[in-house]
Amino acid sequence: MPSPLQSTTSVAVLGCGLIGESWSALFLAHGLDVVAWDPDDGVLSALPERVEPLLAQLRALGPVSDRPGRLSVAPSAAAAVGNAGWIQENAPEKTAVKHALYAEVEAAAPPDAVIASSTSSLTWTDLAAGVTRRDRFITAHPFNPPHLMPLVELFAADERTLGRAESFYRSLGRVTVALKKDAVGHIANRLASALWREAVNIVAEGIADVGDVDAALVHGPGLRWSVIGAHMAYHLGGGPGGMAHYLDHLGPSQERRWATLGTPGLTPEVRRLLIDGIAQEAAGRSIATLEAERDRGLMLALAARRKAEEGENP
Amino acid sequence: MPSPLQSTTSVAVLGCGLIGESWSALFLAHGLDVVAWDPDDGVLSALPERVEPLLAQLRALGPVSDRPGRLSVAPSAAAAVGNAGWIQENAPEKTAVKHALYAEVEAAAPPDAVIASSTSSLTWTDLAAGVTRRDRFITAHPFNPPHLMPLVELFAADERTLGRAESFYRSLGRVTVALKKDAVGHIANRLASALWREAVNIVAEGIADVGDVDAALVHGPGLRWSVIGAHMAYHLGGGPGGMAHYLDHLGPSQERRWATLGTPGLTPEVRRLLIDGIAQEAAGRSIATLEAERDRGLMLALAARRKAEEGENP
Repeated sequence: MPSPLQSTTSVAVLGCGLIGESWSALFLAHGLDVVAWDPDDGVLSALPERVEPLLAQLRALGPVSDRPGRLSVAPSAAAAVGNAGWIQENAPEKTAVKHALYAEVEAAAPPDAVIASSTSSLTWTDLAAGVTRRDRFITAHPFNPPHLMPLVELFAADERTLGRAESFYRSLGRVTVALKKDAVGHIANRLASALWREAVNIVAEGIADVGDVDAALVHGPGLRWSVIGAHMAYHLGGGPGGMAHYLDHLGPSQERRWATLGTPGLTPEVRRLLIDGIAQEAAGRSIATLEAERDRGLMLALAARRKAEEGENP
Repeated sequence: MPSPLQSTTSVAVLGCGLIGESWSALFLAHGLDVVAWDPDDGVLSALPERVEPLLAQLRALGPVSDRPGRLSVAPSAAAAVGNAGWIQENAPEKTAVKHALYAEVEAAAPPDAVIASSTSSLTWTDLAAGVTRRDRFITAHPFNPPHLMPLVELFAADERTLGRAESFYRSLGRVTVALKKDAVGHIANRLASALWREAVNIVAEGIADVGDVDAALVHGPGLRWSVIGAHMAYHLGGGPGGMAHYLDHLGPSQERRWATLGTPGLTPEVRRLLIDGIAQEAAGRSIATLEAERDRGLMLALAARRKAEEGENP
């Protein structure tokens, strides 16, 4: 698979927690050399071993590069980026920590390397305040786990850098969307937060238990939204007249329903309901077991999606 | 496939629009005889032809009953329910229309037949006000299209009737969730409305276009929610400490994000953005084409899900 990077350059992965290890696997599977750094030596030295099962998942999912990339670790962020064409930063979600890292990285990185932050909760504006060359700084927010989830949400101030980012992540089989303006929570986490607020409200109001809310989502709207988006669903809900017909006939009832949605707080009582409810839903399964089940489900869903894209029928 | 109905009884389908035709296909595929009625003779006489492609989808998805049910049509609601063990009502979402229908149906139905309303926007309480024997009246809200979407949301005042409903819909391969108390929008449409409100807000605020919001959902949270629920996703987001850890560490940032979510109105300007945006996303594809694409995607997703349930790997 071709990459928009020079063959002599590598990807630097800064911060090797859950997000960094998953990015590493994705880059390696696509034949890119990865130079990783993490301030925690234990995390860094365990990385090759932690990446292995993720690479196995990617091999199971479909063809990966004939020549997988080489993974090496660096003693400092500066050393990691010295020969990098792309820098994927996954440091803790603290502005000061990231700013300090950018200062070190900007001084050491090749001039045309892009610095991409995986930040989930901070904005480009927050982070760019600590960057000198803002034209090459972007946010590139993946959905966890990045090696399986296709979405990468991009924001860049520079059009050319945005174009490079779109080519780069698409060359890794990702689906990119670009924000027209910087926003907290990008797109997907805003949607997820809005849905979770009501999911919490339904539990807090005693309409349904945690497990039933999750079941309703997975077997109802979640399944549908894995195939078509929310706007498109209402377009089809309007019948032959589409969105315009939907808005005419059911817009007012949506506005009335919006007025009945809740604005719960995460009070001690609500926390207790959520913690007890999830324990009941997990029914003794450990986090590791639940993660393995999620990953297997995601991989099957991704395989189904590939069939759909290739025009295959069930 | 066994059914909790007597072999001599049938299912009455009252109202044969999109929901009624899809229910009919599901019942028939599971070997149940269907007696259908609709006030519009044209709709009723076209039903057998409209059910055929839906049955073909169910056959393509997997094994259906060796002996498919028989579909017949009745000249009145009273005639349709005369021998019914189950009555699935899909009349227009108008309380007065449904109340008038219930009066006719209650007088003609066998005493132990359950009357189940597919209502999406009305509540059990609204509708039961027009029913004499409330112990056998339930809401059973499917997700569109019911023959493909597994979810059925139930509310019943009578425990024994709720139990019968759970057995009945599960015997049709559906996943049921029961509301602990009656609520507008049940569970799934409350979640869908909450998400769509923010999806509209993102467009209204100029953060992203309709098509990019849909793409972010389909390739991010939608894909994930087709595998695990929103509560479970945050449980896993908490790492080894699960939900309790998540709430301690990221609960406050969720509450801050909730405060930034929008409360748009469906003003003429917003309607214009939605209608133009969906036209751009549809890119010339007709409603029928988009529906066919949705159904094919759903069928592949359902086939993948069955593999996951059977313990198969990708």
